[in-house]
Amino acid sequence: MSARGFPEAEYRARCDRLQTEMADAGLSALLLTTEADVRYVTGFLTRFWESPTRPWFVVLPAEGRPVAVIPAIGAPLMARTWVRDVRTWVSPDYSDDGVSLLAATLAEVVPAGGAIGVPTGGETHLRMPLDTWAAVQQRLSDRRFAGDGDLMRRTRMVKSPAEVDKIAAACAVAARAFARVPEVAREGVPLDAVFRRFQALCLDEGADWVAYLAGAAGPGGYGDVISPATDAPLAAGDVLMLDTGAVLDGYFCDFDRNFTVGPATPEVAEAHRLLVAATAAGFAAARPGATAADLFHAMAGVVGAGADAGRFGHGLGMQLTEPPSLIPADDTVLAPGMVLTLEPSVTLAPGRLMVHEEDIVVTEDGAHWLTPPVGPSLTTL
Amino acid sequence: MSARGFPEAEYRARCDRLQTEMADAGLSALLLTTEADVRYVTGFLTRFWESPTRPWFVVLPAEGRPVAVIPAIGAPLMARTWVRDVRTWVSPDYSDDGVSLLAATLAEVVPAGGAIGVPTGGETHLRMPLDTWAAVQQRLSDRRFAGDGDLMRRTRMVKSPAEVDKIAAACAVAARAFARVPEVAREGVPLDAVFRRFQALCLDEGADWVAYLAGAAGPGGYGDVISPATDAPLAAGDVLMLDTGAVLDGYFCDFDRNFTVGPATPEVAEAHRLLVAATAAGFAAARPGATAADLFHAMAGVVGAGADAGRFGHGLGMQLTEPPSLIPADDTVLAPGMVLTLEPSVTLAPGRLMVHEEDIVVTEDGAHWLTPPVGPSLTTL
Repeated sequence: MSARGFPEAEYRARCDRLQTEMADAGLSALLLTTEADVRYVTGFLTRFWESPTRPWFVVLPAEGRPVAVIPAIGAPLMARTWVRDVRTWVSPDYSDDGVSLLAATLAEVVPAGGAIGVPTGGETHLRMPLDTWAAVQQRLSDRRFAGDGDLMRRTRMVKSPAEVDKIAAACAVAARAFARVPEVAREGVPLDAVFRRFQALCLDEGADWVAYLAGAAGPGGYGDVISPATDAPLAAGDVLMLDTGAVLDGYFCDFDRNFTVGPATPEVAEAHRLLVAATAAGFAAARPGATAADLFHAMAGVVGAGADAGRFGHGLGMQLTEPPSLIPADDTVLAPGMVLTLEPSVTLAPGRLMVHEEDIVVTEDGAHWLTPPVGPSLTTL
Repeated sequence: MSARGFPEAEYRARCDRLQTEMADAGLSALLLTTEADVRYVTGFLTRFWESPTRPWFVVLPAEGRPVAVIPAIGAPLMARTWVRDVRTWVSPDYSDDGVSLLAATLAEVVPAGGAIGVPTGGETHLRMPLDTWAAVQQRLSDRRFAGDGDLMRRTRMVKSPAEVDKIAAACAVAARAFARVPEVAREGVPLDAVFRRFQALCLDEGADWVAYLAGAAGPGGYGDVISPATDAPLAAGDVLMLDTGAVLDGYFCDFDRNFTVGPATPEVAEAHRLLVAATAAGFAAARPGATAADLFHAMAGVVGAGADAGRFGHGLGMQLTEPPSLIPADDTVLAPGMVLTLEPSVTLAPGRLMVHEEDIVVTEDGAHWLTPPVGPSLTTL
């Protein structure tokens, strides 16, 4: 892998884009509270977000660098980012868990009557207690809180070349692990053991951690794609699917592979062939100017309208799934730098499903694969 | 490990306790939106929450089983829980991503003028877009949304014997992995390789996944405890700390171990001895009727007031960190079934810290260790 993190210019460019949109929208500041949004503007990368105890705040003013308003436990790490203004309190503090410090910071960078943008749209949430949110709003009654008009979504959706490199590196790690699945999965091995061993393969191939692994196995297809593994042993005739989000330097891959335990039935072989053809159709349709919906329809033209997943792929980057969604209702116009998963599914029978997934990046002249696309034939275990 | 999941009686007992408190608080329903809260009342266990795209809702009425209002992709898994009323929509839906279905469900179980409880206090958040939240409130203008008065917090804080068994099993997995650290860490091995190999050891010892690993290494102590690993090789004189949250059947452990690369300096050896003594003091103080603050003071009596972590331990269970906090301001009265981490820290010099952590459960007659407590001597690598 290339060096960890990004040069300061990367964060400056991100904030410049956001601040231009903020000016257009009449926002004097952005308030960010989630792991990905905070990291996007600061570079603050830690697994400590797994602890829900403490709130973390970053304020992006109309110009200049972000201001971090964070628990003191995060100060040494934040001090190593490009952020220069790091304000801390010792958290948890039951009398005032950051409310005063955040309100004072916002009052400093936002003039009276000014508007503070907060992400409020699809796929967002506010990572702070509702009581804290009410208290902050009450302290700033002469400022206005408003939705961010999806500007974080729009900005994060287009990846820089350096971000694409990170995602490609995460994909390469998982691709090497998938190539080694025959080492750990065969008839008789319990599915939960396959899950454990596959995660270990991802680590062995260089993943920092394995944030996501789902999968399933069943005769002639599987029932759903989000359940944890049981200890049922793989049996001849099973189709095994593993779908992983391995993380490298804070960026995800998200793709899957299907395997057959012993020879595949003609029905399963044909379903896999269709899924691969649908993915190829999605890839061919992916170019600047096409919409997310166009990619859905390109894949649906091969496999039909799909299962209850509701979509045939999505954005990818600092999170396992990001906007846009490849669904008929998503009119997002694709642009160079957008990273997408192509994830068609077919229902072979009630309760018997197959899903395939690859990752791509949209470029000036079409799309490039970030994962090594599989051929139509299933790998036999 | 014993069987996965819990018998239906476990969920019925949880909901009975919640519903008794709801009646006392005048709440006609609870609205739950986060992974842990949803799982607590339903048993719905999946890593799919890693995707922030879709909102998930569970409504607990004044009596009876919870009602799930969820994306269709989760229907097969939710159907295998004790929940009988599963209402789904195909998500993402840009025109109505669950709002109508949730509002109709709440209107059905809450009479006009009735109150709907939502967790709003410390360590909580609302996992849905603020726009969705506003729309749901607007649809239900003749019902009242209110804080839950921390009833979820109080209820979840006391674990059932079956929950304690799950946490103990997760602790045992990580304890076996920690015992094998000398296999993977020695002078010259880069810290990020140690992190990858330690996670693989946790998986090899039976973890379903490794949701959390932090740590650090440095001469005579480390700078902070939440940073990701660098590729700096371990050097003679380094103190290495690994702190893991391994997950088994949806329950966490959270504890650490310190190691010395070559002989420890007298200063480091003394700091470790103090940390272990502080942990023992916390253990001795842990009994029904003592407060969270009492445990803080018992440990602070040995190591002083501690570093910027702000606390000397916390609750543990379905999440890496849960209430209460072992801080002077936390007057939570300990009760049998509370699972806690004891996590004292000492600052050896500016930027040089050591932290130690064990897990315990409060019982009728004191406390029991869930982790095998280490002795005063550091393990030498």
